[in-house]
Amino acid sequence: MGRVTDRRRVIRIEAGRRTTRPDTLVAEEPLEIRVEGRPLSVTMRTPGDDFDLVAGFLTTEGVVAAPADVATMRYCAGATDGGMNSYNVIDVALGDAVAPPAATLDRNFYTTSSCGVCGKASVDAVRTVSRWAVDADPARVPASLLAGLPQCLRTAQKVFDKTGGLHAAGLFDAEGSLLCVREDVGRHNAVDKVVGWAARAGALPLRGRVLMVSGRASFELVQKAVMAGIPVLAAVSAPSTLAVDLAVEAGLTLVGFLRGTTMNVYSAGERITG
Amino acid sequence: MGRVTDRRRVIRIEAGRRTTRPDTLVAEEPLEIRVEGRPLSVTMRTPGDDFDLVAGFLTTEGVVAAPADVATMRYCAGATDGGMNSYNVIDVALGDAVAPPAATLDRNFYTTSSCGVCGKASVDAVRTVSRWAVDADPARVPASLLAGLPQCLRTAQKVFDKTGGLHAAGLFDAEGSLLCVREDVGRHNAVDKVVGWAARAGALPLRGRVLMVSGRASFELVQKAVMAGIPVLAAVSAPSTLAVDLAVEAGLTLVGFLRGTTMNVYSAGERITG
Repeated sequence: MGRVTDRRRVIRIEAGRRTTRPDTLVAEEPLEIRVEGRPLSVTMRTPGDDFDLVAGFLTTEGVVAAPADVATMRYCAGATDGGMNSYNVIDVALGDAVAPPAATLDRNFYTTSSCGVCGKASVDAVRTVSRWAVDADPARVPASLLAGLPQCLRTAQKVFDKTGGLHAAGLFDAEGSLLCVREDVGRHNAVDKVVGWAARAGALPLRGRVLMVSGRASFELVQKAVMAGIPVLAAVSAPSTLAVDLAVEAGLTLVGFLRGTTMNVYSAGERITG
Repeated sequence: MGRVTDRRRVIRIEAGRRTTRPDTLVAEEPLEIRVEGRPLSVTMRTPGDDFDLVAGFLTTEGVVAAPADVATMRYCAGATDGGMNSYNVIDVALGDAVAPPAATLDRNFYTTSSCGVCGKASVDAVRTVSRWAVDADPARVPASLLAGLPQCLRTAQKVFDKTGGLHAAGLFDAEGSLLCVREDVGRHNAVDKVVGWAARAGALPLRGRVLMVSGRASFELVQKAVMAGIPVLAAVSAPSTLAVDLAVEAGLTLVGFLRGTTMNVYSAGERITG
């Protein structure tokens, strides 16, 4: 369980010369999320911080909103033929006050290694309604502070250095201090792990915080930020049209191509000062 | 419909100076796939080559295997409230010989903007059984030929140049000629579009071909290559443990970190010569 990396033998070819050696790879394993014993979703993830991942997933999909909404989480033994605990199946018991997933929920959640939105079997239902008004967040962040975040995130990426195979998400406060960083083969999992870490600590909504991601900004990452009440999402690379449209609609500040002292601000630019 | 890119206004901040200008972004829109009128899956994709995407998705998920297995594909009008055709919903009629998706199928397919595997609501069912024996493919590819593919793929990426926001997949023959290239916000969509292009042309299994992808190699990309009968998958960046494990099991040659004249071969290395 829980191995973040593992080794495999590899043939290295370098300008025609071959050598065989062990190579460190990032681990990818399926995680099945069950609610009250019922399969809800399978995601391909890097093992580790699994309870944060599950709490974050349930939060960003709108199932839970407070620590008490999750009564217990446990790894299911007996999930394999031999009755072994694979540590790849987690069962969640919801709090008494939480409405159990509807009968159609198993159709409505789809999550995979690099995207967490897409939950809905109907195009019309793709947008999830957030419990918090991100557009009312008065946070202000200097551009010079944002400029320092990519390097800070990169420095905190322990596994990437060994494998080159991971996305990262980092949560910062308005002074630029790193509060939480998570790495995963799936970028949406990295974000869910950060959100779940905060959710389990009772820290939602994440008012005044900045979420920094290592790659591109898709619709689903914006959606997850909004669902967690985060007012600023910054990405090293490009956003998509739908990511920008949702950010504009929700009043979230979306920053892309954050490199050195240059950046593009796609929405709610009044939050970026200096 | 079908806009691959679109423009949004952006505030550009460069060393403290602000300018406002239009920016070209890669389009991301949901595509709902229906079979015989029944919703099967929603994927976040870049519009364009949608029929290839759907044919590829159904192929790599094991629903169809030959051109006749798909009778018709059409965009559904009336999918929106106003009865407009959003060009974001495609309905597929299967051939007479094809078993319709089982009653549980809507639970079994999950696909999103960067991953297409994960289809199964059970961890045990994640691996899909391929119709073709990739391990029996006698293809041989010189390392020097592989070394030229990343540049060739990069040159063929028309949209990336404008947006910086796209994954690419390219299909090459054993002489290094580019047969098909597709770009998408989701890497699994780019691969499905390539596979679907071949499937609709009756070219499956793709014996002796090389599939090159712009990013990392995840489990699901290996699975898709195997399902299409492709013997060699090369990636610019890192594979995951599960990607390597499936490649070893299926006898697919998996190449990672293909940069310049260096590369790592993780499985079935006998196919890489020179």
